[in-house]
Amino acid sequence: MRYTSTAIEALIEEFAKLPGIGRKTAQRLSMHILQEKPGEVEKLSRALTDVKEKVISCSICQNVTDRGDDPCSICRGKGRDLSKICVVESPPDVLAFEKTAQYRGLYHVLHGVISPLDGVGPDDIKVKELLARLSLQDGREVSEVIMALSPTVEGETTVLYVSRLLKPLGIEVTKIARGIPVGAELEYIDEATLSRAMEGRSVL
Amino acid sequence: MRYTSTAIEALIEEFAKLPGIGRKTAQRLSMHILQEKPGEVEKLSRALTDVKEKVISCSICQNVTDRGDDPCSICRGKGRDLSKICVVESPPDVLAFEKTAQYRGLYHVLHGVISPLDGVGPDDIKVKELLARLSLQDGREVSEVIMALSPTVEGETTVLYVSRLLKPLGIEVTKIARGIPVGAELEYIDEATLSRAMEGRSVL
Repeated sequence: MRYTSTAIEALIEEFAKLPGIGRKTAQRLSMHILQEKPGEVEKLSRALTDVKEKVISCSICQNVTDRGDDPCSICRGKGRDLSKICVVESPPDVLAFEKTAQYRGLYHVLHGVISPLDGVGPDDIKVKELLARLSLQDGREVSEVIMALSPTVEGETTVLYVSRLLKPLGIEVTKIARGIPVGAELEYIDEATLSRAMEGRSVL
Repeated sequence: MRYTSTAIEALIEEFAKLPGIGRKTAQRLSMHILQEKPGEVEKLSRALTDVKEKVISCSICQNVTDRGDDPCSICRGKGRDLSKICVVESPPDVLAFEKTAQYRGLYHVLHGVISPLDGVGPDDIKVKELLARLSLQDGREVSEVIMALSPTVEGETTVLYVSRLLKPLGIEVTKIARGIPVGAELEYIDEATLSRAMEGRSVL
């Protein structure tokens, strides 16, 4: 069953292609757009094409940045600890760490993890760029690379792969702790996490 | 905390303005757009502006239709029962009835209901257009106007208002039944609905 307007049908179809948006939500969004001011819709439409035209990867950390703003604001940032690089999978992870306001080092975005099942090998993610960066003049300052990938099989594989590449360079490779999240109740934590928490216990 | 790309921040902000989409979802959608093919993003962007440029109200039933496709496909439709008009609040309601594949009459979309609290009076919805339509040559065939509005205070007010206008014209005004939905369990139905179901009981 289709709307009497093909333009609305087209918009519903496009919205429904987005992740987590089904046909019902797409319908509601389209009805909202229909009633929205033309200027507002124009802004959304412009923002969409802008992202494809203006966003590039930072030549240093591979995080997203705007054309004409390379290296990105974090790589250029003052007061950053240049001796640490935190390796993450995707741009939102950088944001997550920045929100902690604790970590003040640099980042490196891999844009993926090694996943042979999905046909993603070491050359498909930004590992080469990490190595290149470490061998540059600025990279010599780096003493620690912190692997902050998701605790999945693919994440752990990538951690192992990168650490084997970096250790011969005399750089310390660490990975973030797996353990019980703050605020969680012990009895509801799964066995794997509890085991990791026990292994990673620290002296008081 | 903001992304290192202003273009991405702008897109997240625009997405987050849509109903039911918070900042987290807006972030996920923006990351999806970033990785999507430029052609696909262009299609979504085009579909958005198209809706504002091409969609108009059908001059007869006020439902959405495309410029150059007026009257809409339902008003022009063959095999339609021209003696019945089903009055609904918004375009998705038309779709909902069309999906039943039972009702074959015409529609009239009010684009709202009378709601004094929100400053919506009878002149702000398409009641005039309904009256005008009934007094036209084609409108003379109409013998029944079916009010299919949501069972809210505003909906009921609108039903009353429209029925008082139409009765002097000698047109039968009906409203759709309130009762227990198909598949529901009696014990979980609220009192108001049960009362309405009892009032509206039919002889077997």
